[in-house]
Amino acid sequence: MSSRHILLMDGPDHKGLIFTVTKVLFEHQQNIIRNDEYVSPSGYFFMRTEFEGEINPNIVFSALRKALPEDLRLRLKSDKKKDIVLMVTKEHYCLAELLIRYAFDELGANIKAVVGNYNTLRPLVEKFNIPFYHLSHEGLSREEHEDKLLKLLLRYQPEFLVLAKYMRILSPGFVSHFPEKIINIHHSFLPAFIGANPYRQAYDRGVKIIGATAHFVNNNLDEGPIIAQDVKRVSHRHTAADMATLGRDIEKAVLSEALKLVFNDRVFIHRNRTIIL
Amino acid sequence: MSSRHILLMDGPDHKGLIFTVTKVLFEHQQNIIRNDEYVSPSGYFFMRTEFEGEINPNIVFSALRKALPEDLRLRLKSDKKKDIVLMVTKEHYCLAELLIRYAFDELGANIKAVVGNYNTLRPLVEKFNIPFYHLSHEGLSREEHEDKLLKLLLRYQPEFLVLAKYMRILSPGFVSHFPEKIINIHHSFLPAFIGANPYRQAYDRGVKIIGATAHFVNNNLDEGPIIAQDVKRVSHRHTAADMATLGRDIEKAVLSEALKLVFNDRVFIHRNRTIIL
Amino acid sequence: MSSRHILLMDGPDHKGLIFTVTKVLFEHQQNIIRNDEYVSPSGYFFMRTEFEGEINPNIVFSALRKALPEDLRLRLKSDKKKDIVLMVTKEHYCLAELLIRYAFDELGANIKAVVGNYNTLRPLVEKFNIPFYHLSHEGLSREEHEDKLLKLLLRYQPEFLVLAKYMRILSPGFVSHFPEKIINIHHSFLPAFIGANPYRQAYDRGVKIIGATAHFVNNNLDEGPIIAQDVKRVSHRHTAADMATLGRDIEKAVLSEALKLVFNDRVFIHRNRTIIL
Amino acid sequence: MSSRHILLMDGPDHKGLIFTVTKVLFEHQQNIIRNDEYVSPSGYFFMRTEFEGEINPNIVFSALRKALPEDLRLRLKSDKKKDIVLMVTKEHYCLAELLIRYAFDELGANIKAVVGNYNTLRPLVEKFNIPFYHLSHEGLSREEHEDKLLKLLLRYQPEFLVLAKYMRILSPGFVSHFPEKIINIHHSFLPAFIGANPYRQAYDRGVKIIGATAHFVNNNLDEGPIIAQDVKRVSHRHTAADMATLGRDIEKAVLSEALKLVFNDRVFIHRNRTIIL
Repeated sequence: MSSRHILLMDGPDHKGLIFTVTKVLFEHQQNIIRNDEYVSPSGYFFMRTEFEGEINPNIVFSALRKALPEDLRLRLKSDKKKDIVLMVTKEHYCLAELLIRYAFDELGANIKAVVGNYNTLRPLVEKFNIPFYHLSHEGLSREEHEDKLLKLLLRYQPEFLVLAKYMRILSPGFVSHFPEKIINIHHSFLPAFIGANPYRQAYDRGVKIIGATAHFVNNNLDEGPIIAQDVKRVSHRHTAADMATLGRDIEKAVLSEALKLVFNDRVFIHRNRTIIL
Repeated sequence: MSSRHILLMDGPDHKGLIFTVTKVLFEHQQNIIRNDEYVSPSGYFFMRTEFEGEINPNIVFSALRKALPEDLRLRLKSDKKKDIVLMVTKEHYCLAELLIRYAFDELGANIKAVVGNYNTLRPLVEKFNIPFYHLSHEGLSREEHEDKLLKLLLRYQPEFLVLAKYMRILSPGFVSHFPEKIINIHHSFLPAFIGANPYRQAYDRGVKIIGATAHFVNNNLDEGPIIAQDVKRVSHRHTAADMATLGRDIEKAVLSEALKLVFNDRVFIHRNRTIIL
Repeated sequence: MSSRHILLMDGPDHKGLIFTVTKVLFEHQQNIIRNDEYVSPSGYFFMRTEFEGEINPNIVFSALRKALPEDLRLRLKSDKKKDIVLMVTKEHYCLAELLIRYAFDELGANIKAVVGNYNTLRPLVEKFNIPFYHLSHEGLSREEHEDKLLKLLLRYQPEFLVLAKYMRILSPGFVSHFPEKIINIHHSFLPAFIGANPYRQAYDRGVKIIGATAHFVNNNLDEGPIIAQDVKRVSHRHTAADMATLGRDIEKAVLSEALKLVFNDRVFIHRNRTIIL
Repeated sequence: MSSRHILLMDGPDHKGLIFTVTKVLFEHQQNIIRNDEYVSPSGYFFMRTEFEGEINPNIVFSALRKALPEDLRLRLKSDKKKDIVLMVTKEHYCLAELLIRYAFDELGANIKAVVGNYNTLRPLVEKFNIPFYHLSHEGLSREEHEDKLLKLLLRYQPEFLVLAKYMRILSPGFVSHFPEKIINIHHSFLPAFIGANPYRQAYDRGVKIIGATAHFVNNNLDEGPIIAQDVKRVSHRHTAADMATLGRDIEKAVLSEALKLVFNDRVFIHRNRTIIL
C-alpha cells in the first residue's frame, strides 16, 4: 500500500544535499512527486520533497537521517489533516469562511473547537456542529484568562491555533506554548499601520491601496513572520468604515490562502521570514 | 472659437452649489463635458467641471465668482501643457520614462530643464535636446546648495517640480517656495518603510508585496499627500537587490500615473489627503 | 421625518440636465448626498443622485418628471433592501458566501428562497432558515422545467434572480420574464473561454492569469453586460483542477462585488455595457 | 577560473533523474546555485540547474549526456548576453522601453539592429547608436518583403527576434526560420480579443479589465505559447482610445517581463504552453 509523504529539511547549506536526498529516496524505491529547494543568500538550505512508495516511511526517514549532516533539521509529515482550534472575538467573517471550507472538506484541517472571549459567535459555530467555548476575559487578569485558555487548549492539543479575528493581545508566556503554531490575520498591509484601528490610520494617511497580512505570532505584536498578503485599491470616496468593509474580504481571503500553505506543510520560518516551497 | 476649460472648486459645503455652478454655465451657453463632485464626511466640497463654449472664459469665471459663496475657492485652468522641471540624482529609469513620454507628446507637460546633483544623467537628457544642469552638492552646505537650485528654478518658473529619483532631502525652506507643486516618487508602499533603504527593510521584514508611492512633498519627509500607489508580488526568492530591480518598474509606472492626474488638474489636496476627480 | 432616496436618470443628452435636476431638488429643500453623472461618447446621459429631505419623494419626483425632457427615463429608488431568489446546482461556495452575508446583514438584499435543480445544497440553506426548493430537471423538457421554475418564482416576485453557480442554460423565453434582473457568475475572464469547462480551456491555452465575470443574463449565453471582473495569477504548476479551486475564490468575490453594486442601484445598462455610478 | 552555467533538461519523466543530475555535478565538483524541476500531469519532466565550478563545462555536459536517458533533451547555456534584433512599425513605446534598458545594461541582451517597415522610429533608434533598417513593405508581395527581411536577419543571426509592435502578420514560411525564437507582444489579454482592434473590441464588450500578452510566435496568429500577461482595471469612463493609452503601459511592462525570463533561459515550451523555472 503506497502513501504520500512530505519531507521538510532546513539547515546550513552543504555540497551534495540534493544528491544525497534523491539518492536515498531512489535506493528505497520512492517516487518523487514534487521537489523544491531554496538556498538563501546567507547560505541556509531549505528543501521540501513529496514522495510516495511502498516501503515504511520511517525506514526511509532513518536512512535519510543517517546519510545527511547532523545540522540539517529533518521533519517527516504525512498528508493527514491537521487538528486546529480557532479563537475569535465578535467578528464573524473569517470564522464563517473557515467553517464553510471545513464543512465542504476544503480546509485541509479539522476544526476541533472554537473559543471566543465573547459569546456572540456561538450560534454560527453551532450551526456546523463544532464545540464553542465562551471564555470571557471580563473580571479576569490577563494571566488568569490565559490560564483558562491554556487548560482548554491542552485538552485539544491542536497542531495550529488560528486567530480568526481574536482581538486580544496574547502574552509572550502564552505564545511560548505554541511556537510557530499560532497564525493571525492582521487588518493592514504590515508593516504599515501596526496596532489599533488600521483602517482609520489608512484613511487619515490617504493611502490608495489597503491590504491584509496573515502571519505567525511571536512575542512582538504584529511582527511575526509574514505568510501571505493581499491588497485592494481604494479612493478618497472610501471612508474608514468603507475600508473596513472592503478589508474584510481581503482578510478572509488572505487568511485562507495562508492556512492552505501552512496546512500543506509548505512554509518554513527562518530569521523572521517565511520560505514557501 | 470654442475652447475647453477646467473649473476647480473647493470649500465648505453649502446647499445648492452644484445647482449654482450649472446654472451660471447654462446661462452663459457653456457645454459641460465632464463634471465630478465629492463631499467629504467632514462636509468639505470639491468639484471639477470641464466645459467649453464661445464666451470668454474670464467672463464666465467672474459670473461664477459672483454667484458662489466667498469661502469657496475657485480656480480656472486651461488645457495648456504645464511647464515643469525635473530633479534627478543618478538613477535613470524614472527620468527616461518621462523623457520618452515627452518626446512622443504623451506627458501633458513641457520639460523645460533637468537638474542633477550628479552629472551622470547628462548624456541621456541631451539625447532629447533638453537643458541639463549639474548642480553638485559637494563642498556646499544644504543651504548653499538649495540657494543655487532656487536661483536656477526661478529662471524657469516651473508650475511643477518633479523629483524623478532625486535622492537628497529638501529643507522646509526650499519646499515652502513650491507649495503643492513638488511631486516625489518614493520606493516603498508608504507608510511602510519610510526613510532609507526601503527594499532592504522590505526584505528583512519578509513582505510578500512591494510597492511605490507618488506623493506631494511637504515639510515632513515621506508624509505628504499620496497621489498614486501600486504594488507587485514578491517571494522569499527575491533578494533586496531583486526587489529594487522589480521596484523600478513600479516606481516609474506610479510616477507617470500620478503626473497624468496632476497635469490634467484632477488632484485636490485637503488635510494631507488627495481627492482625485 | 427625513429619508434617503436615489434617483436614476438615463437618456439622450440635453443641455442643462444637471442644472434642471439640481434646481428642482434645491427648490424642494432636498439635500444632495451624492451625485454622479456620465455622458457616453455617443451622447447618452446617465445620472444617479442620492438625496434626502422632508418632502414626500413622490412630489419631488413629479416635479422632476415635469421639468425634464420626456426622452429621459427617471426611476426613483428607496434604500429598502431588494427581495431576491437564488438559483443553484451543486456547488456551494457562491451560495455560502451570500448566505453568510445575508445572515450578518451585509448583503443589501433579502434572500426569499433558494431553488436548486439538485437537492445537494438543501442542508446548507436550511441551516440559515431559508426555504429551499428542489426542482429537478430530470425527466422534464427544458420548457417543462422552466415552467415549474417560473410558477415558483412568480410566488416570490423577486426583484433580482441570482444564479449562484446554476449550471443549466436558461431559454430566451425564461429570460424574457426577468429583463435586466438575472445576474450570473461565469467562471472565466469573459470573453475568454466562453462555454463549458473554462478552466480546462485556460489550462490548455497556458494562460498566466485566470478570472471570473459577473454579468447580467440576456439571450446570448455568456454575452450579457459585464458588471464586475477580477483575476488571479497562475503558473504552469496549476492543473486545470487547481485553477478551478483558485477560481472559486475569485468567483465568489466577484459575484459579491457585483451584487453590492446592483443592490445599491449603481448599475445602468446601455448597449450591452454597464455604466456604474 | 569559475563561471556560471545553466543546464536545461526536458523529456519524458524517469525515476532518478534529479538524483543522476546532482550526482554527476557533485562528482565534478560543481556547485548548484539554483535548481528547479517540474513534472507535468502527463509525465513530462523539466529541470533547470544553475551551477558553477572550475572544470570545463563541456566535460560536465558530456558526463551528464552519458549518464542520462537518451530521450531527455539537454541544453547547456552560458550566462552570455543573447544577440537580438527588434522589429517595429510606427509605435514607439515598447521599442523605447527596450532601448532604455539596453542603454543602461538592464536588458540581458544585445540589440544588434532594429528593422522597421516604416521609417518613423529611425530618429529614436539612432539616438542610441543602433543600426536602423527601413524595409518598406509597400509595393512588395508578402513573400518579397519577407525575403528582404530574411536576408537582413541572416546577416545578424539573432538568437531571438522581438516584435516590439511590429504590426504585420508573418507567414508560416518566415516563422519556420526562427522556431521558438520570435517573441511578440499582443495588445489584449489573450485569448480574448484575438485579431485586429482589440481595444475597440474590449470597449464594445464592456470589460472591466484589460490586459496584454507576450507570447512566442508560431504558425497560428496570436495562438503561440504565452510567456507573460498582465492586466489593469478600466471602467465605463474609458473610451477605446483611453484603453489603448492605458494598454501601452501594460504592453511594455509585459514584454519586458517576458524577455527577462527568456533571456535568463528560464522558459521551456511544451504542447503550446510555457513552463517557467
